[in-house]
Amino acid sequence: MTEGARPIPRLFFGARYEIETGERVLPEERAVALSFNGTTQAVMMATPADLEDFAYGFALTEGIATPAEIEEIAVVRGERGVDVQTWLADTAEARLKDRRRTMAGPVGCGLCGIDSIDQALRELPPVPPSAFRMTPAQVKEAIAALPAHQPLHDLTRAAHCAGFWTPAGLFAAREDVGRHNALDKLAGHLVRHPHPEGAVVLTSRVSIDMVQKVAAIGAPVLIAVSAPTADAVALAERLGITLIALARPERFELFTHSDRLVTEESHVR
Amino acid sequence: MTEGARPIPRLFFGARYEIETGERVLPEERAVALSFNGTTQAVMMATPADLEDFAYGFALTEGIATPAEIEEIAVVRGERGVDVQTWLADTAEARLKDRRRTMAGPVGCGLCGIDSIDQALRELPPVPPSAFRMTPAQVKEAIAALPAHQPLHDLTRAAHCAGFWTPAGLFAAREDVGRHNALDKLAGHLVRHPHPEGAVVLTSRVSIDMVQKVAAIGAPVLIAVSAPTADAVALAERLGITLIALARPERFELFTHSDRLVTEESHVR
Repeated sequence: MTEGARPIPRLFFGARYEIETGERVLPEERAVALSFNGTTQAVMMATPADLEDFAYGFALTEGIATPAEIEEIAVVRGERGVDVQTWLADTAEARLKDRRRTMAGPVGCGLCGIDSIDQALRELPPVPPSAFRMTPAQVKEAIAALPAHQPLHDLTRAAHCAGFWTPAGLFAAREDVGRHNALDKLAGHLVRHPHPEGAVVLTSRVSIDMVQKVAAIGAPVLIAVSAPTADAVALAERLGITLIALARPERFELFTHSDRLVTEESHVR
Repeated sequence: MTEGARPIPRLFFGARYEIETGERVLPEERAVALSFNGTTQAVMMATPADLEDFAYGFALTEGIATPAEIEEIAVVRGERGVDVQTWLADTAEARLKDRRRTMAGPVGCGLCGIDSIDQALRELPPVPPSAFRMTPAQVKEAIAALPAHQPLHDLTRAAHCAGFWTPAGLFAAREDVGRHNALDKLAGHLVRHPHPEGAVVLTSRVSIDMVQKVAAIGAPVLIAVSAPTADAVALAERLGITLIALARPERFELFTHSDRLVTEESHVR
């Protein structure tokens, strides 16, 4: 059994109300606390696998620490959940304190709604200029490559996947019951392993926070199987990300920065 | 145009690489701050519709206030998002202060991971005893009833829906780009409108937090189009909720408390 799934008994009711007993393999969902220098920054309901990647990726995409600032990670598995304790270099401490201040505020003061909204919509710098280009055939290749790297989804039909495609093929993929977690885990893998430029490929929908995370990763292209929100499109436009969505192996839709899609194969191979 | 969606230009790439220009209607996603007595409790990326329902529902499912304690709601639409300001009766103030304390903690103290996990997994009381029963035919009827109440999904193919079915038909449905928001909006509508007992019907997957919200609503049956997590099944079992998932108009799977499913129509009509 793949880590993160287990069989659960259930009754199946069919078209003619026939009833079958049996089991269905379902993904596990555990509470995962991400703590940095002893302070919990978030508790996520997540697939309890690839947790070091998760810590690296969350630190990166949430702007808590650079990979170089991460000194030690301890994964403490408890009865009710997993505490992923990350210890950071001194250089990250001031940033962490600042984040704690804006996240929490002293008890009873609170944040006014507008301040909190500005925080949720924090503007990130656009992705760095890049010569990375893809052909339409490569976009379809990237989408078609993902299913071979989804063992948890194969078992459960109920897990999200975030992959990273480069012209040499699918570089890595991570799965999770949560789409944000899958992307953070992929981000954590990417920052720890040198890799060529490429495209993030998601099975999920694209909301604003997914575009923010892709910008933090610095990927110039985002390809998603499901739809984006109108505002995620606007953000991808501002951040210089080529957004492709509603992508199937035979067709896709391009929403922003079409200049990265080229028809001459010679540009990329 | 339905509130919460707008057309976005895009290029379509087809099977033979033919390119078509045109538009796709996509759901809007706005930052919605939910503040209570002047303190923001959460900022959600949400569909900016049914925001009073959202405030009522979030207050209920997060245990902030009962409907009777809500005195006034002001929806303040700003350029970057919407601030939904809810004002509560004095009786809710102590509870709110307590929640602020456990949420935030004084700056620099933080919460240890295990405390935070216990908070995320807060145990709710089981749903009250109920004589509510459904036949398999009614389960299929409830699933089949939902699509007629999804105008945002009709436009965008990218919105979640939470409905409430009673033996008299679909009582209400709410849509949102976020599945938790759709359920909270439904909860807010339900607490403000007297209704018979019934089942919550979701288009989305069922994670632990969705079961927690259904328990706070007090609904004895939860029907979902997509899959549950293994741990959401375990929680539904503990909380006395009949969980039906992977539900289509012609078939479904029953995971917990099968005693609420009866074959004699006379039990329910």
